[in-house]
Amino acid sequence: MDEATQALSPDECWEFLRSEEFGRLAFHLGDEVHIAPINYAVDHRTLLFRTAPGSKLLAVVMNPDVAFEIDAYDERTARSVILRGKARLLEEDEAHRAENVPLRPWVDADVKYNVVEIAPDTLSGRRFDLTKPWTHLKP
Amino acid sequence: MDEATQALSPDECWEFLRSEEFGRLAFHLGDEVHIAPINYAVDHRTLLFRTAPGSKLLAVVMNPDVAFEIDAYDERTARSVILRGKARLLEEDEAHRAENVPLRPWVDADVKYNVVEIAPDTLSGRRFDLTKPWTHLKP
Repeated sequence: MDEATQALSPDECWEFLRSEEFGRLAFHLGDEVHIAPINYAVDHRTLLFRTAPGSKLLAVVMNPDVAFEIDAYDERTARSVILRGKARLLEEDEAHRAENVPLRPWVDADVKYNVVEIAPDTLSGRRFDLTKPWTHLKP
Repeated sequence: MDEATQALSPDECWEFLRSEEFGRLAFHLGDEVHIAPINYAVDHRTLLFRTAPGSKLLAVVMNPDVAFEIDAYDERTARSVILRGKARLLEEDEAHRAENVPLRPWVDADVKYNVVEIAPDTLSGRRFDLTKPWTHLKP
């Protein structure tokens, strides 16, 4: 890692994860890698998200290996957190965990949702100083 | 797709892709799925990105199956474009293609970069009306 890049501590990663509610899930679907935006919430040291029956749910039931990413940037700094882990459909008697966290649907849809938990195996975060050198170029 | 979700046309997807320069790449690394933020640019109907020698480069050389995502949202609407396709390390005599597009490094790093092309197999985009119902809740 060079001087322009700093690692975030695990606590900084969780703080950032708690401050956001929108990220991207990468998952296997057969031999293919897929990616989808999701709403999520942190519950203790796991992530929870809701999903309708469909390819995301089928995918993580068939192969629980997933990766998840959030990021944010302004003119000077970018931050990114990447979590890899295992996805698991919560049983009916665990799904109430989604009621205790700010896991809010952004889109109105009259669908029965399942709750999926992502338990992390690895977590890493980085902060980049953005030089954007072209912004200093004179015309 | 319900009323709150509209599909973007291919032209709208490409227009959105051209207007951004930061997205997320999902790729295979052995049996694992990984995700990483990348700077990219559109070159005709492909994406180009630069990467230092390392896991991303090794990964796409070993398994070119990738997925890529961009998104943007404000208080009322979210948009997301997802592209699936094949990644390919450009040969030395093709790498000049990166010179003709706005593919700019955001971070100063004295590293020799390789140029990777993502040729799309599938492209899809969606616009969501965000209801965020809790913002209408009275305390």
